[in-house]
Amino acid sequence: MNTAKNNEQLKVAICGGSGYTGVELLRILSGHPLVKITAVTSEKSAGKKVSALFPHLQKYQNLSYEPMNKIALLKKADLFFLALPHGASQEAVNFFFENDKPVIDLSADYRLSDPKVYQEWYGLPHKYPNTLKKAVFGLPEINRSRIKKAKLVANPGCYPTSAILALLPAVKNKLIDLSSVIIDSKSGTSGAGRKADVAVSFCEVNEGFKAYGIGTHRHTPEIEQELSLASGKKIRVNFTPHLLPVDRGILTTVYAKISQKADTASVLQVYKKLYKNEPFVEVLDEGIFPNIKNVRGTNFCHIGMKVVPRTNTLIIVSAIDNLVKGASGQAVHNMNIMMGLRETTGLESVALFP
Amino acid sequence: MNTAKNNEQLKVAICGGSGYTGVELLRILSGHPLVKITAVTSEKSAGKKVSALFPHLQKYQNLSYEPMNKIALLKKADLFFLALPHGASQEAVNFFFENDKPVIDLSADYRLSDPKVYQEWYGLPHKYPNTLKKAVFGLPEINRSRIKKAKLVANPGCYPTSAILALLPAVKNKLIDLSSVIIDSKSGTSGAGRKADVAVSFCEVNEGFKAYGIGTHRHTPEIEQELSLASGKKIRVNFTPHLLPVDRGILTTVYAKISQKADTASVLQVYKKLYKNEPFVEVLDEGIFPNIKNVRGTNFCHIGMKVVPRTNTLIIVSAIDNLVKGASGQAVHNMNIMMGLRETTGLESVALFP
Amino acid sequence: MNTAKNNEQLKVAICGGSGYTGVELLRILSGHPLVKITAVTSEKSAGKKVSALFPHLQKYQNLSYEPMNKIALLKKADLFFLALPHGASQEAVNFFFENDKPVIDLSADYRLSDPKVYQEWYGLPHKYPNTLKKAVFGLPEINRSRIKKAKLVANPGCYPTSAILALLPAVKNKLIDLSSVIIDSKSGTSGAGRKADVAVSFCEVNEGFKAYGIGTHRHTPEIEQELSLASGKKIRVNFTPHLLPVDRGILTTVYAKISQKADTASVLQVYKKLYKNEPFVEVLDEGIFPNIKNVRGTNFCHIGMKVVPRTNTLIIVSAIDNLVKGASGQAVHNMNIMMGLRETTGLESVALFP
Amino acid sequence: MNTAKNNEQLKVAICGGSGYTGVELLRILSGHPLVKITAVTSEKSAGKKVSALFPHLQKYQNLSYEPMNKIALLKKADLFFLALPHGASQEAVNFFFENDKPVIDLSADYRLSDPKVYQEWYGLPHKYPNTLKKAVFGLPEINRSRIKKAKLVANPGCYPTSAILALLPAVKNKLIDLSSVIIDSKSGTSGAGRKADVAVSFCEVNEGFKAYGIGTHRHTPEIEQELSLASGKKIRVNFTPHLLPVDRGILTTVYAKISQKADTASVLQVYKKLYKNEPFVEVLDEGIFPNIKNVRGTNFCHIGMKVVPRTNTLIIVSAIDNLVKGASGQAVHNMNIMMGLRETTGLESVALFP
Repeated sequence: MNTAKNNEQLKVAICGGSGYTGVELLRILSGHPLVKITAVTSEKSAGKKVSALFPHLQKYQNLSYEPMNKIALLKKADLFFLALPHGASQEAVNFFFENDKPVIDLSADYRLSDPKVYQEWYGLPHKYPNTLKKAVFGLPEINRSRIKKAKLVANPGCYPTSAILALLPAVKNKLIDLSSVIIDSKSGTSGAGRKADVAVSFCEVNEGFKAYGIGTHRHTPEIEQELSLASGKKIRVNFTPHLLPVDRGILTTVYAKISQKADTASVLQVYKKLYKNEPFVEVLDEGIFPNIKNVRGTNFCHIGMKVVPRTNTLIIVSAIDNLVKGASGQAVHNMNIMMGLRETTGLESVALFP
Repeated sequence: MNTAKNNEQLKVAICGGSGYTGVELLRILSGHPLVKITAVTSEKSAGKKVSALFPHLQKYQNLSYEPMNKIALLKKADLFFLALPHGASQEAVNFFFENDKPVIDLSADYRLSDPKVYQEWYGLPHKYPNTLKKAVFGLPEINRSRIKKAKLVANPGCYPTSAILALLPAVKNKLIDLSSVIIDSKSGTSGAGRKADVAVSFCEVNEGFKAYGIGTHRHTPEIEQELSLASGKKIRVNFTPHLLPVDRGILTTVYAKISQKADTASVLQVYKKLYKNEPFVEVLDEGIFPNIKNVRGTNFCHIGMKVVPRTNTLIIVSAIDNLVKGASGQAVHNMNIMMGLRETTGLESVALFP
Repeated sequence: MNTAKNNEQLKVAICGGSGYTGVELLRILSGHPLVKITAVTSEKSAGKKVSALFPHLQKYQNLSYEPMNKIALLKKADLFFLALPHGASQEAVNFFFENDKPVIDLSADYRLSDPKVYQEWYGLPHKYPNTLKKAVFGLPEINRSRIKKAKLVANPGCYPTSAILALLPAVKNKLIDLSSVIIDSKSGTSGAGRKADVAVSFCEVNEGFKAYGIGTHRHTPEIEQELSLASGKKIRVNFTPHLLPVDRGILTTVYAKISQKADTASVLQVYKKLYKNEPFVEVLDEGIFPNIKNVRGTNFCHIGMKVVPRTNTLIIVSAIDNLVKGASGQAVHNMNIMMGLRETTGLESVALFP
Repeated sequence: MNTAKNNEQLKVAICGGSGYTGVELLRILSGHPLVKITAVTSEKSAGKKVSALFPHLQKYQNLSYEPMNKIALLKKADLFFLALPHGASQEAVNFFFENDKPVIDLSADYRLSDPKVYQEWYGLPHKYPNTLKKAVFGLPEINRSRIKKAKLVANPGCYPTSAILALLPAVKNKLIDLSSVIIDSKSGTSGAGRKADVAVSFCEVNEGFKAYGIGTHRHTPEIEQELSLASGKKIRVNFTPHLLPVDRGILTTVYAKISQKADTASVLQVYKKLYKNEPFVEVLDEGIFPNIKNVRGTNFCHIGMKVVPRTNTLIIVSAIDNLVKGASGQAVHNMNIMMGLRETTGLESVALFP
């Protein structure tokens, strides 16, 4: 992809800019020195000022939501973030892609390379299998070199990001029994999106905690696809999401039987080595474990682990902010890579603690 | 044990009455028609009125904390709840037991039947092995008939209560591979006790979530002891506790490989059958899963489950209130059983929702 | 009203039983020994089991929601709680009232004695001014003797309950300058009702805090009506509600200039005297101030105060649970009074702390 | 003061760097391009790496806490932030000041210009009255030109910042009756500091809300001092702080009688005019009111207001983040002004919402 020229800002459009991932793109990009947001769409809020709907975004005094007129948008921007619901994204992605615009899709529509798997889990046919073939799964820790050359990046799901980063070094280095993987994830409520729904109302969520989508959550095949690719074998995992009464954050606890002799120190070494040059993955020292609060508002993934000899099990814990590393921050990271910018540009802020 | 006579209230003492489990005993027993609290101890708060320290306990206008003078206490009460730190409880339990008083111990000191296992996990020798032999593990769903005749009940830990109830029917009925058990538990912060400690201060816990004690938590041998007894085989489990930013509640998610052909409906049937007559265990219908909010402030345990054919795994979720079914409510339940009272007396309140 | 006969339970219907106040009536009445709920209505959930919609209400296994067929309901119950939206309640109240059934209305429709004031604040005409004349404002601390004989009780609003109880002794005893009253109230989110609305979704409320309805909240005339009656003078107050990120609770901070020489002790004495025999009002000792957490889940109102000589101001703080003393608990209290039952029946539970 | 030269970073020391305001300085300054932190002190954590104690501060891999050796520190830094407890700050401030180092003091020790008032409210004599005379109250919206030339800035308290900004335009423009001012403030728990104390433990604060320090809070004289200066008259105010179960944020609701004919629009105009050029004060449009969530993590103060004709009262609401605009952000703002840097450098981040 082209490098952004000096003194020139990249013109960017956000399609679907009134949900939490769209709003988070606005927040993150407000601090990106090389980007200018030239359009943001929302059908429901078309005509409204961004700063009126979201008073924390006073910086965007001159930006208003507009309906998604794709042809008009084409001229307005050099790169498109799509934060639309899955299903709705299929056609829009294809349109911008066919019109030669770099696209980063935050929906699930272009993440699963096999259209049959997509149809099985999402209940919809994929109408653009040829475009799907061109999509790169946008986890920089796996696909950096492909993302550099990509015109269409499928930004990973929040749970898959946390699970894949937790398992990748173990899987790649054959440290674990691939048939024994348990992924127990806990996510903040922003993961459910911004919506009018009693189930996510304050009084139902606050002081509560529950599992949901047991055995059926749509992020399962995404995790399996990438771990299978990394291991060269077909992997099936147990994945159980839970709902935390916090705004942001995913903590994922992974269990797997060790397949070779190992202790915590030796596994940590494997992890530290693989992630040594990754700007956004921190493998914590032995005895220190992640807390979602330590990554709140940031693009970092913290990883800690322990080998339990009594049960011959490796337990790995990862923490991300679901809206940043799990969505909009990773999307900006992908943009930086696609555009040849310094990878961490706009993504260097430290966690809001407390 | 003796039945409480008509028109006569049982005189009860609480040793260690200013921590959360002690205060919770005061709360629950305030609604128990057949009990009168005649003494409550606290070294730090000796001399203070209960209602001054805990303004929500205005009912106890005439009750003040006193130091723990065991000999003086003997005459004051017919039954003793001990809510002291582990270690400190060993001697106190033994004293009341030897003086022929029924004791319900909420500490961990008399839960592990093997003094060697106790020493290994708690780092202390057990000084009263003969008394330990008389202690009954106070999970009514397992030991009801023994509790009836017991003079010393070791009230189970909060995590073990949630884990054992989740696994008991599966283990007893040989539905699962005993070497594959993963127990991923999440507890509200009251489980850490009432203490001055930055680690449990509001700003460190709120909006946070983390695992702790991975592979080393002291409730592990308690879970293994009871499941081994139930199955007739030595079981080792992976048990990982996490800290939830809520006041109360434990949600435990259990994973185990199925050892025989089964689906969700057939496993549910096994569970419903075993718990049919249990007043405090609710096995939820297929497709409904527990939420800690639905048991908040109550002695109920809610259990839901699913068989995932893709991975041949049984996933069971249980929810309790850690301070009630996980501590003081279960202690009152044990008292009711020991004293021949109707089991649910004082324990019938409905969850505070929202 | 009639006294409930021995061994006979009062048959009670709840119209509007799927909102938070309706559900709270179900919770509270589940512990009331003299009441049997024979019908509960909900248009949206008609046909569903109460325990399916609200898993914490497993006690009501045999109760299902039904549509509100008033004629059919007449035969089913001896007393009617109406927890309908304001406006919708006008006609239903009138119907049961005209058919000689005792009614407790939790809406605002019969609280304002002057139909013109009602129309001014609610934007609706009052269609039953004659029935309105028979309604008694159901604050037992003011109207106990009238409630005893009432057939229609207008249950007070949550904010008015907290504000009126905080001010009543000062106003009655002419301790304050009536033109100087400031009422700054903070309410938990359940006060907004159970609804699908982004504004009350978890992520918008959690970690937030704001004022709303400044100068225009509909509870203002209710407060003014009762304080004017108590003082014999027309009072206007500043009332500002705020939204707290908690489930339950209202804390109201009142400011008023002192009109005569007074110190904290002397004012406290006036308050303690007036509320001496009130089962649900606790005037706290000097130096102790209310916390909503100490009344959570209970029908109690805690009151604390201080005279600040530097500014000649009396500051009063009151705390209630908005769903209990501020709604359904007070409604049950009113029922007990109307039916000649012991006032505290079913309302004696202690706050859930922590 | 001197301007930081091109390509040269200002060397900065933080004395008291393990409390919440010290840690927040580390967070904010991590994004300040012209500052390098060369020393951070903590007696308790001396020798520990910053990133070990605070895993969210991984950026400071090479920074460790050191004990506060003032003489050694002198050489290490060009400017000193002091985040010590009040009392302890008196001597340290004086030392750096006398050694010609610019100092920004986040304690209360140099905020009250009259040493008698300091002694009255803090119970300590002021040992450095001559240095106190040189201190400038560091609210840029009042004292920008004096801060530019100051060598010692007393950074305002969190509550005073929120209250003074809310009242300044009204007081300066004589819109209100100065004897009628009520300031009702609500603060997140980080305002209480980082400490081991049951009173700020999660289970005591969560789901709770209370007033504290009624009529006696030490921020009262600070508010009165600045409002008196602004009005030219001695003002006394009622100030009541409350504790919110959130991490961050202060919402202050101010009430005052209007002293001249005014409506919301006309008062808003006065506010918008006064704050027109202020980079960190946003006066919201009519009908929009502040929420602490919209300023979380930022240096912004949001202000909304309403004139209530029924009571002739002006109600003003302001929102800040107590750790940023109420402490460390304002301190960095003051540093920028003192050093001749662009005022907003390092302070431009947008609120974390949700």
